[in-house]
Amino acid sequence: MESVTDSIKKLRDLMAKEGIDYYVIPTADFHQSEYVGEHFKARKFITGFTGSAGTAVISQKEAGLWTDGRYFIQAANQIKGTPVTLFKMGEPEVPTIPAFLRENLKAGETIGFDGRVVAMSDGLEYESIAREKDGKIVSDKDLINEVWTDRPPLSEEKAFALEEKYTGESVASKLQRIRQVMTEKGADVHVLNTLDDICWTLNIRGNDIDFFPLVLTYAIITRETMDLYINEEKLSEAMKADLLKDGVHTHPYDSFYDDLGKISAQSKVMIDPVKVNYRTYNCIPPKATKIKTSNPEIIFKAMKNETEIKNIREAQIKDSICHVKFMKWIKENYDKTTITELSASAKLDELREAMDNYIRPSFAPICAYGPHSASPHYESSPETDVPLEEGNFFLTDTGAGFMEGSTDITRTYAIGEVSDDKKEHFTLVAISNLQLASGKFLYGSTGMVLDILSRKPFWDRDLNFNHGTGHGVGYLLNIHEGPAGFRWTFRDHESHQIEEGMILTDEPGLYFEGSHGVRLENELLARKGTKNEYGQFMYFEPITYVPMDLDAIKPEIMSAEDKKLLNDYHATVFEKIAPYLNEEEVEWLKKYTREIN
Amino acid sequence: MESVTDSIKKLRDLMAKEGIDYYVIPTADFHQSEYVGEHFKARKFITGFTGSAGTAVISQKEAGLWTDGRYFIQAANQIKGTPVTLFKMGEPEVPTIPAFLRENLKAGETIGFDGRVVAMSDGLEYESIAREKDGKIVSDKDLINEVWTDRPPLSEEKAFALEEKYTGESVASKLQRIRQVMTEKGADVHVLNTLDDICWTLNIRGNDIDFFPLVLTYAIITRETMDLYINEEKLSEAMKADLLKDGVHTHPYDSFYDDLGKISAQSKVMIDPVKVNYRTYNCIPPKATKIKTSNPEIIFKAMKNETEIKNIREAQIKDSICHVKFMKWIKENYDKTTITELSASAKLDELREAMDNYIRPSFAPICAYGPHSASPHYESSPETDVPLEEGNFFLTDTGAGFMEGSTDITRTYAIGEVSDDKKEHFTLVAISNLQLASGKFLYGSTGMVLDILSRKPFWDRDLNFNHGTGHGVGYLLNIHEGPAGFRWTFRDHESHQIEEGMILTDEPGLYFEGSHGVRLENELLARKGTKNEYGQFMYFEPITYVPMDLDAIKPEIMSAEDKKLLNDYHATVFEKIAPYLNEEEVEWLKKYTREIN
Repeated sequence: MESVTDSIKKLRDLMAKEGIDYYVIPTADFHQSEYVGEHFKARKFITGFTGSAGTAVISQKEAGLWTDGRYFIQAANQIKGTPVTLFKMGEPEVPTIPAFLRENLKAGETIGFDGRVVAMSDGLEYESIAREKDGKIVSDKDLINEVWTDRPPLSEEKAFALEEKYTGESVASKLQRIRQVMTEKGADVHVLNTLDDICWTLNIRGNDIDFFPLVLTYAIITRETMDLYINEEKLSEAMKADLLKDGVHTHPYDSFYDDLGKISAQSKVMIDPVKVNYRTYNCIPPKATKIKTSNPEIIFKAMKNETEIKNIREAQIKDSICHVKFMKWIKENYDKTTITELSASAKLDELREAMDNYIRPSFAPICAYGPHSASPHYESSPETDVPLEEGNFFLTDTGAGFMEGSTDITRTYAIGEVSDDKKEHFTLVAISNLQLASGKFLYGSTGMVLDILSRKPFWDRDLNFNHGTGHGVGYLLNIHEGPAGFRWTFRDHESHQIEEGMILTDEPGLYFEGSHGVRLENELLARKGTKNEYGQFMYFEPITYVPMDLDAIKPEIMSAEDKKLLNDYHATVFEKIAPYLNEEEVEWLKKYTREIN
Repeated sequence: MESVTDSIKKLRDLMAKEGIDYYVIPTADFHQSEYVGEHFKARKFITGFTGSAGTAVISQKEAGLWTDGRYFIQAANQIKGTPVTLFKMGEPEVPTIPAFLRENLKAGETIGFDGRVVAMSDGLEYESIAREKDGKIVSDKDLINEVWTDRPPLSEEKAFALEEKYTGESVASKLQRIRQVMTEKGADVHVLNTLDDICWTLNIRGNDIDFFPLVLTYAIITRETMDLYINEEKLSEAMKADLLKDGVHTHPYDSFYDDLGKISAQSKVMIDPVKVNYRTYNCIPPKATKIKTSNPEIIFKAMKNETEIKNIREAQIKDSICHVKFMKWIKENYDKTTITELSASAKLDELREAMDNYIRPSFAPICAYGPHSASPHYESSPETDVPLEEGNFFLTDTGAGFMEGSTDITRTYAIGEVSDDKKEHFTLVAISNLQLASGKFLYGSTGMVLDILSRKPFWDRDLNFNHGTGHGVGYLLNIHEGPAGFRWTFRDHESHQIEEGMILTDEPGLYFEGSHGVRLENELLARKGTKNEYGQFMYFEPITYVPMDLDAIKPEIMSAEDKKLLNDYHATVFEKIAPYLNEEEVEWLKKYTREIN
């Protein structure tokens, strides 16, 4: 492995040769994926910083790394002794990347980046910065590829078909619905970059990026055919034949951009401006009409069908069983043997692996003890690992991918006896979780309308948590899935009204730096309730069944309604999970789901 | 007075002469006002329909009147025997006006209207309909003026200055703040049509439209001067001199549009697209740059200053005293003498008139007994008036304009003993009102974030009310004032975050057609609370002090928290109002603000 210093030098030499003054390297693949495969970890390669989020900007004089608050300490350590400078995003006086470029780019200079790993909107912003300075953009060169001599190849993992007993809808039916939207919008071509949209449409999954079981693909859908760009080795002959039956023709992964250029200039091309990369946008012939709209796949896949719901319920039962056994194991063993964040995490994996149809973790697990639990996005590593000890919380935010769907569950456990203020915080988070879950609402409500049900117990006490309250969950796709979510501030891609069949997480928390954190996360299924003269009422059904640790509950601060909600939830947990446990486990669960008053 | 039939015939003859095929007559003045003066009641003149909302569209064959559900019965009665046809807005199969025009306009035909009484957006829509049919627009002819021989003249009422002890800010300071926004937006001219924005800026009030104490004016603000278009007879010499000191030059009301045409084509003109009429938009030279943005006066006047707040508190105390006396009078007399909706309304006016600095009602009063209270916008008239009788509710939604500000208060009173379900509905509305008022929130929240605090008691029981939960209140300006409000669905002009010093109404209700309705409305003052690591917390202070009728409260359905909120509110009512009452009244108020449990 070459040193960061050497790599940056090589990159600078190449930049000089190509006439590029600033080269931007984000943490991204060609598909705007949340996690990326090894081949795409270019920013990690060029800076040495291993965190999941960050962007590097290299010039002859500077090598900047922009990352957020979660990673300030880690990044500072990892860049020591390299030419890399840390830009702490969100801190006062620290410029954003566009602001930095605006300030530093000299007249006539050039900004370079690989247009495939840069979102359309970011690319357009770099364009406008270059234009302001009479400079230019070079976006067709992946300079990292020439510097990174031992770069891992693109993933060659096989794809697999997800049978209709899991998906509940055929490819033909999905394509028909997509084409109906194309007709409504007057589009004859629909271009896709996003892996989850493509895999959902084609009922395929794979193993090409971290955590999410997706396949590296691009797609062009017309009224009659679909062109799929994929390393064809990934597909079995049977899968290819099935795809062909649905009018899906396969082509080499790399030929996508050339084919975009062949789209007729008379075409009306439907693209989602937030879901395509800059090169995709630029390769579509300029004369073709661009119909900019949300990918129709987004709302289609968010509204789970009855088959998917049946499966997701099973997946949640399986993962809830694992959690109940895990909780019992923690409670009974923390004081008998050394359990650390990582060994606990391994135990949870082991319990999941014993379940039928388990695939792999559905996202990067968070297992955080004590002060670590105060960082909402803490990732444990051998360097940071600590044992679980009496008197503080252990927080797990983890998920499993089963053939029956992906889970995302957070629990916080009291290790032994915890202090009164910790119990108070835990209880407030439980109230918050239960109040949101019990919210009834009229159809047409967005998550923004409902969010205060969760925040009220905190806001009433001058407390808050600085993250969204919940997000949509994909079915063996992305764990964070639009277009709805719970949030009190506006975010365009989470602003859709809540529809029947959506699965949303409910994950309020409280965090006290240097001391402790609490988060409790269930998944909620949105369902239709009464319909009357006022409209269609909707409600949520919690489908996660794991006790909220009664060792940390302080009934004195709960209203009668709060206690009823907790008791009802625990009664359901017992009813759903007890049948899968042995006698001793049932006795234990009975205790941890007992009624409080 | 001429008959509607004759007037429509005359109008049709004129239309034929002018080559106009469809003529649109809305209910509006030149300023997008919510209420209009007599001169502007053209739609009432041409159709005979006296309701506050409606638009007429006249062709040689048809004379359509569009109005909403509140007025279906009244309109049908009033147009009997005329050529007018009723179009019931919102009913299935009933086209909107643009849809009607699109369907009926023939190739090459002309749509006409007075561009001064049509909003910019509506005018642009008529333009595009005409364009689709290769037709044209005539917008510079007020044909009604030629038909309406006994048309009342424009109001000639005097204007008056509102002293700084009421406004808390000088004209010079307001103009400086407005010009700062102009500088930020790069504008050198700012054009205003809206009376409340102009009157607020100039600290003047008048008597030119119904209810709101406003003055018919237009304005053009530049970086150095302000041109005010007004019937100069309205202003005293002293007022003119004061205005001139602030660089405000007066011009005849009618010369506004000519002067718009004289704006330099190099100018950058700031206009609010939802606050100007179509002719204003069209008279600005096409080559001038239009900077479309919200009028800065909107947010300025919504955030009341400390002087205004002090005054508004006084106005609320005065009106609360009137309400307490009114409630006592109703409760003690309904069974001794005949009280009707209108006589009760007169009694409330009488109580207000006895108060210092009373000007006039701040909007059209709603006084509704029994089934009438189920119509949220019922307006009592001699034809509909009924006596208050044992066993149902009497609802008053009324307001007063004092020099110290405008009030908007709704109370619902049980007349004698009411049934258990009526009490349940009343209690739910009280809970809803109190829960919203007690909401604490982080700065940045909009009314949409908070609205469910009010809806939850209803939504939990499959109930709802079909109006907004609250609106901003102007200071002797419009009673419905943007840019914030409480609403669960998105409305652009009410979507501003809640700012310190905003006054918002809190007016949930429940309505059961043919039976009864309940609404309880307090005004809330938004204030800053704790500021800590989570941000700036905000809270509301209710500033209306009138009992919520305990004769209609059902404590069994209230939580301990709900009861505490009601008891705390009633304790404040007693503390604030008792000092202004005689001994007997104090005793009575003690009973109606007693603690419940």
